[in-house]
Amino acid sequence: MPRSPEELRPLVEEYLEGLELWPQLHGQAESVRYSIAVGGKRVRPVICLAVAEAAGARPEAALAAGCALELVHTFSLVHDDLPPLDDDEERRGQPSTWKQYGEAVGILAGDALLAEAFRLATSYETPRVARELAEATLGMIGGQYLDITGTAPDEATLHKLKTGCLFSAAVGLALWVAAVPDDGQRAWRTFGDELGLLFQIVDDILDGDGYAVKHGVDGARRLADEAAERARVRLAGIDADTSVLREIVDGLAVRTT
Amino acid sequence: MPRSPEELRPLVEEYLEGLELWPQLHGQAESVRYSIAVGGKRVRPVICLAVAEAAGARPEAALAAGCALELVHTFSLVHDDLPPLDDDEERRGQPSTWKQYGEAVGILAGDALLAEAFRLATSYETPRVARELAEATLGMIGGQYLDITGTAPDEATLHKLKTGCLFSAAVGLALWVAAVPDDGQRAWRTFGDELGLLFQIVDDILDGDGYAVKHGVDGARRLADEAAERARVRLAGIDADTSVLREIVDGLAVRTT
Repeated sequence: MPRSPEELRPLVEEYLEGLELWPQLHGQAESVRYSIAVGGKRVRPVICLAVAEAAGARPEAALAAGCALELVHTFSLVHDDLPPLDDDEERRGQPSTWKQYGEAVGILAGDALLAEAFRLATSYETPRVARELAEATLGMIGGQYLDITGTAPDEATLHKLKTGCLFSAAVGLALWVAAVPDDGQRAWRTFGDELGLLFQIVDDILDGDGYAVKHGVDGARRLADEAAERARVRLAGIDADTSVLREIVDGLAVRTT
Repeated sequence: MPRSPEELRPLVEEYLEGLELWPQLHGQAESVRYSIAVGGKRVRPVICLAVAEAAGARPEAALAAGCALELVHTFSLVHDDLPPLDDDEERRGQPSTWKQYGEAVGILAGDALLAEAFRLATSYETPRVARELAEATLGMIGGQYLDITGTAPDEATLHKLKTGCLFSAAVGLALWVAAVPDDGQRAWRTFGDELGLLFQIVDDILDGDGYAVKHGVDGARRLADEAAERARVRLAGIDADTSVLREIVDGLAVRTT
């Protein structure tokens, strides 16, 4: 029986808690740990583990990749919160990293999270895990640039970069971990794209911005349902036990936090 | 005939100029190019290419690794220049990246440089190149933390991290590119450590700080000469044509810029 999201999440939390940061970080490690512990739902690593298992690997084999992805996500939040960017003093009800440790250490904390992510991602024999992570990170940074400069050609492009890249990587990294050959990856990857879109639309509905403003709540809800349905169709076309991934789609579609 | 530093440097410059940044960076690419073009002596990639050639590889094979290292070095300068850190408005007589593009884009430029570095470093079949780069980056960030918080146990530790890590990686990355087995790497690596120390001491003499303050200019000059001599001894013990590396040691020892 493949493991459920509720069984996979504790694996991720345990791995992140036990993560041995590079000793030469010295005192910088504290703000890195703080940033990781502020936490969240660990959606991306859970997807990564679930895809890895569905594609034939043990979920544990995907822990380094999934958590590398979570560190990149955390890096992006830490830098986005900085005063010159979003200037957020809080993150999940706690002081944001820069607010807690000062701006200088906050900048370095994001840097260290990114470098730690690549240290984890390069623990695999294949360089493809880390390479795809680098590409996804660059796309996300490009999206952040379009956002802060107001130069995005349209909202879809913006979200595809800012949110979609890491969701697609959650699937893509797992495929490399499970050694799925290039020519067998397409259906999985299309599924990942729909998942990122679904996550973004529901996020906007919950936050009352983006898609919810542009299409109204009902219109956005319909777009979310359509993305969820396309994701389910993609899964149905994959010759593997994708029941847990279907459960994740259903959960993302109806989530309220 | 192994190629001289003067022959290797144009290879590096040409590679950096022709570097195709990840297309999804969109407008963020401009500040990344600007940061790279501000340039410098490209000391680290030249060392990387020279070590690769001495260890039996074509220098061209080390270009991605050496330039990944240069991008990490550039990333560190871009973030160090930010107002919450060193607050430097100039870099090599030009506006620093944040001064030219604003703080937000300056932060993202550093992030993008780091991610591009890992994209280059993961272009090798072995993940060891990128893994060593990640470890060196983390050490450098740890050194930066010790510096800005004034918590370094001593100056040697500080410099070993802030400068030494990337110099050691210039040698280490080349060893992986040249497929030098683990047990044949020790002498090369000790050479790299001495090279980093030599570079730092001479830097302090030229800037009138650090070693030059602590030991006086004459004392620092003696320490530099000793480090250069130890580097030459290490090279002499390696069964390879290390003449170009010796030339690099001699050049670093007497450099005036």
